[in-house]
Amino acid sequence: MIKAGILGATGNVGQRFVQLLADHPWFEITALAASERSAGKPYGEVAKWKLETDLPESVKDLTVVPTDPKKVDADIVFSALPAELATGIESDFAKAGVVVCSNASSHRMEKDVPLMIPEVNPEHLALIDIQKKNRGWDGCIVTNPNCSTIMMVMTLKPLMQFGIKNIHVATLQAISGAGYDGIPSMAILDNVIPYIGKEEEKMESEALKLLGTFDGSGVKNAPFWVSAACHRVMVMDGHTMSIWLRSEKNPTAEEVKDAFLKFDSGLSDLPTSPKKALIVREEPDRPQPRMDRDQGRGMSVSIGRIRSGHDNAIKYVCMGHNTIRGAAGASILNAELLKKKGYL
Amino acid sequence: MIKAGILGATGNVGQRFVQLLADHPWFEITALAASERSAGKPYGEVAKWKLETDLPESVKDLTVVPTDPKKVDADIVFSALPAELATGIESDFAKAGVVVCSNASSHRMEKDVPLMIPEVNPEHLALIDIQKKNRGWDGCIVTNPNCSTIMMVMTLKPLMQFGIKNIHVATLQAISGAGYDGIPSMAILDNVIPYIGKEEEKMESEALKLLGTFDGSGVKNAPFWVSAACHRVMVMDGHTMSIWLRSEKNPTAEEVKDAFLKFDSGLSDLPTSPKKALIVREEPDRPQPRMDRDQGRGMSVSIGRIRSGHDNAIKYVCMGHNTIRGAAGASILNAELLKKKGYL
Amino acid sequence: MIKAGILGATGNVGQRFVQLLADHPWFEITALAASERSAGKPYGEVAKWKLETDLPESVKDLTVVPTDPKKVDADIVFSALPAELATGIESDFAKAGVVVCSNASSHRMEKDVPLMIPEVNPEHLALIDIQKKNRGWDGCIVTNPNCSTIMMVMTLKPLMQFGIKNIHVATLQAISGAGYDGIPSMAILDNVIPYIGKEEEKMESEALKLLGTFDGSGVKNAPFWVSAACHRVMVMDGHTMSIWLRSEKNPTAEEVKDAFLKFDSGLSDLPTSPKKALIVREEPDRPQPRMDRDQGRGMSVSIGRIRSGHDNAIKYVCMGHNTIRGAAGASILNAELLKKKGYL
Amino acid sequence: MIKAGILGATGNVGQRFVQLLADHPWFEITALAASERSAGKPYGEVAKWKLETDLPESVKDLTVVPTDPKKVDADIVFSALPAELATGIESDFAKAGVVVCSNASSHRMEKDVPLMIPEVNPEHLALIDIQKKNRGWDGCIVTNPNCSTIMMVMTLKPLMQFGIKNIHVATLQAISGAGYDGIPSMAILDNVIPYIGKEEEKMESEALKLLGTFDGSGVKNAPFWVSAACHRVMVMDGHTMSIWLRSEKNPTAEEVKDAFLKFDSGLSDLPTSPKKALIVREEPDRPQPRMDRDQGRGMSVSIGRIRSGHDNAIKYVCMGHNTIRGAAGASILNAELLKKKGYL
Repeated sequence: MIKAGILGATGNVGQRFVQLLADHPWFEITALAASERSAGKPYGEVAKWKLETDLPESVKDLTVVPTDPKKVDADIVFSALPAELATGIESDFAKAGVVVCSNASSHRMEKDVPLMIPEVNPEHLALIDIQKKNRGWDGCIVTNPNCSTIMMVMTLKPLMQFGIKNIHVATLQAISGAGYDGIPSMAILDNVIPYIGKEEEKMESEALKLLGTFDGSGVKNAPFWVSAACHRVMVMDGHTMSIWLRSEKNPTAEEVKDAFLKFDSGLSDLPTSPKKALIVREEPDRPQPRMDRDQGRGMSVSIGRIRSGHDNAIKYVCMGHNTIRGAAGASILNAELLKKKGYL
Repeated sequence: MIKAGILGATGNVGQRFVQLLADHPWFEITALAASERSAGKPYGEVAKWKLETDLPESVKDLTVVPTDPKKVDADIVFSALPAELATGIESDFAKAGVVVCSNASSHRMEKDVPLMIPEVNPEHLALIDIQKKNRGWDGCIVTNPNCSTIMMVMTLKPLMQFGIKNIHVATLQAISGAGYDGIPSMAILDNVIPYIGKEEEKMESEALKLLGTFDGSGVKNAPFWVSAACHRVMVMDGHTMSIWLRSEKNPTAEEVKDAFLKFDSGLSDLPTSPKKALIVREEPDRPQPRMDRDQGRGMSVSIGRIRSGHDNAIKYVCMGHNTIRGAAGASILNAELLKKKGYL
Repeated sequence: MIKAGILGATGNVGQRFVQLLADHPWFEITALAASERSAGKPYGEVAKWKLETDLPESVKDLTVVPTDPKKVDADIVFSALPAELATGIESDFAKAGVVVCSNASSHRMEKDVPLMIPEVNPEHLALIDIQKKNRGWDGCIVTNPNCSTIMMVMTLKPLMQFGIKNIHVATLQAISGAGYDGIPSMAILDNVIPYIGKEEEKMESEALKLLGTFDGSGVKNAPFWVSAACHRVMVMDGHTMSIWLRSEKNPTAEEVKDAFLKFDSGLSDLPTSPKKALIVREEPDRPQPRMDRDQGRGMSVSIGRIRSGHDNAIKYVCMGHNTIRGAAGASILNAELLKKKGYL
Repeated sequence: MIKAGILGATGNVGQRFVQLLADHPWFEITALAASERSAGKPYGEVAKWKLETDLPESVKDLTVVPTDPKKVDADIVFSALPAELATGIESDFAKAGVVVCSNASSHRMEKDVPLMIPEVNPEHLALIDIQKKNRGWDGCIVTNPNCSTIMMVMTLKPLMQFGIKNIHVATLQAISGAGYDGIPSMAILDNVIPYIGKEEEKMESEALKLLGTFDGSGVKNAPFWVSAACHRVMVMDGHTMSIWLRSEKNPTAEEVKDAFLKFDSGLSDLPTSPKKALIVREEPDRPQPRMDRDQGRGMSVSIGRIRSGHDNAIKYVCMGHNTIRGAAGASILNAELLKKKGYL
């Protein structure tokens, strides 16, 4: 078993890491790190567990440690740190020889840091060697994208064959994406908030790196643009988005559907990989977050309403679980790929 | 006072008509028509009043009449009938010499039927004369658009000067748009439904007629296209939408904002016309349905987040009250314009 | 395997029966009965499956049959029929030799019909023999209580030792209790409905029969009263209730808690029986429906806030999953008890 | 016009004070006090206005002052301070000669501080003279009760004639009662929280003082007890509660209803007093928070479902707007009574 630590272990995404790693066949939780305030106390006491499944017995009595490489006994750490803390701390861990799988946005767009979705760009892992060399680190940092970006990009991967020219995307995002205390109930009851800070920028930039080409020395961005409009809605988990796709080859809706159906992630040997990364729904009104977010134990992206639009567009809807597929599960799948590829 | 009847008076939009007309300075409710089941009983008994304001005393004891021109004593009728009934019944009323202001979709796209937003295309009213001649009717049918279409088109009107080429629009629509029993709570709690029957088609077609040119004999559609993606969310009232606009003149966000701010409906003499038809919000996260839907007594459309997008697009958000501005209030404003223009 | 049919198989509770029986170790779904409209068609086509787990493959292609003992090939039927249909149909099945486990209210209060919660009154099963004799039936009808009653009565069972004198109970009930189309979203968003038809009456009468004494010939009601106030709230699943208990022995809160903790259902050999029928939460703000309803695969009742009140009352909160513990799961547990006791 | 200041002016209840006082015929807002962080800046900039009506123009540019009697130019201050700050600050203002109308709980139960509902115990105002004498203050502190207590006690007032013996009450309380950031959306979506800190204690103690007898030197508590169970539900505004009343005279439901209908507050000369303090609904499923909270501009309490219960109880439901009738409006009505009685 590989020794795994979790940074930011008491927060919303941190708790998801605990939940998903508690019975993991390859990783064993050996360290739960949180703020100085929580350090020294049992996790069960400080975590204020907010998930519907019970707090795993195995971590209940684990003493929380400070977020310090010297105090965290682990070969790999999963980082659920807020961006403003992640920048420095994650580097410290990598410097100290630890593999960091981060859900934070801090390092995502750095040239020698892999921004990864195992189903999409496994070859980008090679950036690790460049990163280690550049920075003289024993460890490394590997990141997963923003939650909305993940759902969108997973559906774009099998469509790259059509020569994507541009994407319009409108999101309807769940409240859990903002953290447990992020959205006051008075802000969102009977309401929509048509703004999520930096979300549109992330979707527009991260997608291009993820679908870019690794040429041996770096990643060349994919040659299209994404234009996003992001909205928060009263949904617990599950980001829904409507996409307009335009491409060189102008496939029919049927051809796009076939591309989704034929998509094989080639990751069936990774424990967190779902049987089907992409699920195509035939009902006219699906996917829906409450109905479909738990597909593939929260790791599948569901797609529906594939149809033609104006100006040769294909329109469709996709949806995935934002704190599993879009956050903790994404980092863990990255870690599983790292193990498979010998980086762990 | 002009004698006004309401068809479909017990439904969701029918109740809004009652609410908005109860104290109207020009119209007096003289007839409330509903199904045979309700006819003959006092409105207060059969209406199952669902609005937050009290059922107006003046209509509580009015006896409901059948939906029959012979039984409805009125110079004008406001129709909140479902489309499948509206087709025949509205024609019967027009034939019988009554002016029909309809919220139903049945006649909207007929060539000699005005599809109206007073702020947008008052000159289309001239179709009435053609309609009367064509059909040999003493009365006439005037329609207002679909609720989502209204919000969008009102914001497009002042942007026509830039030479609109195309619109992408994603909507987040309120549950009241589906009628009181339309959306079961189990369908929408903690959920999004990314589909509304025929809504995308309506937005894509009605907008072009509304913004089209009346050439003396008919309306020539506006020369651009609209591509819509419609979603239902857990909001009581208020349809929110994100728009990508592309145009010949590629205005800046500032120029688009100025166009909104300068827009004057010229309707200040109509009682239902709001002080400002378009309201521009400066906050980064507005408009929001719960906060802004009652602006201008529900008749204003609020706009925000005006910004540049890829490929010379201007992106913005707009929102309006779907059962007032988008339904009953829209019909009443049409009626007020008819009166002003001498058709009543 | 025992051949099991489901009556009312396409509705909300009917779907729960299908979900819970699909992998049951003792029962095999051999017949799905629904209205004439659905009969003859594959279940997958007519069911409009609304549960978050996928429609089980094993029933997708099963042809729906009419609700007629001659068309339903089963040794036992689970009835999710509405009360107005259940009265006659369930009798017909029992007459035809079938064991009927019913969730309907129709027969609950009949003297020779067992109203059962296996953890509470297994000895009442003996009414079956009386029922068969009285009615000359080969089959029989066994009922489970109303959903709210179940949660309350399960917590009262271990408190009977204190000599219960009376109960005040206020409920906060989930929307799923009214069926899929029962509560329009416009009725309940940002709202409470302080009324549920006949619910208070059911809680007040069924509890006394359930906790009554079987004396060989019939059930003598328990000698206390229940006074209920029922409310509908915007929760998907999980009925929460606050209880004031008064008793002869005036136990302390600690003694009441001990009684809950010591409660052993003695049903560990029944597959649907949860490990713990009653779960006591220590947190000040639990149980909560979203957090606790899935405990024991939806079959446990969670209890919290046990405290002293005025006039020697003990106050506490309890909560359970209304469509599992309170409906389909309750019927299935009854059937398991029937099998264990040799009635099947 | 009387010069009025608001303490805690930027919070949830503070904003309600601003909204309700902006056009008040007797009071003029002359000072808005908030934390040091906000002091010195325009109210419109720091308030983060959260109410659906627009921020009143008259206060937009008012410079926020520190919460210090020397900086607040006012004859009366309305306090929306949190309890932990209110204790000292309110005393400082009273000492400085200002009349303090407080919504905070700090001073409510002090013997020489009036805890007031003008419809209920106007004679308790006489405590002011005792307070001034006791404390040597020029000003004074007058408090209004906790929001839930107000709704309940207003309905109990006309029932005192029956000789109340005891009250069981279960509440379903709105999220706005916890302040804007009080309840995270992730805590309450699809959920009930069966606990509100100190709420049950407040209802159980404050009610007795409010309905107590002023004997010239102090208030003697009313001779009955209240036992409360409090729950938070997903409602924006409006606390609903079910009450079981037991009394010496055992009135019928009809007699209780008559008592409500006959209740006359005698306050028609106070601008904030609603036409009817108590409204009796005849529908079986009312009052409901979304439908009835705005009755009497948020100042009426609506009552329904008056019925007999066990053990001579009368059961009924009542509901009122918690941040208007239950907070800001309550304080303002107190101030109006003070003015009428010559204390201002």
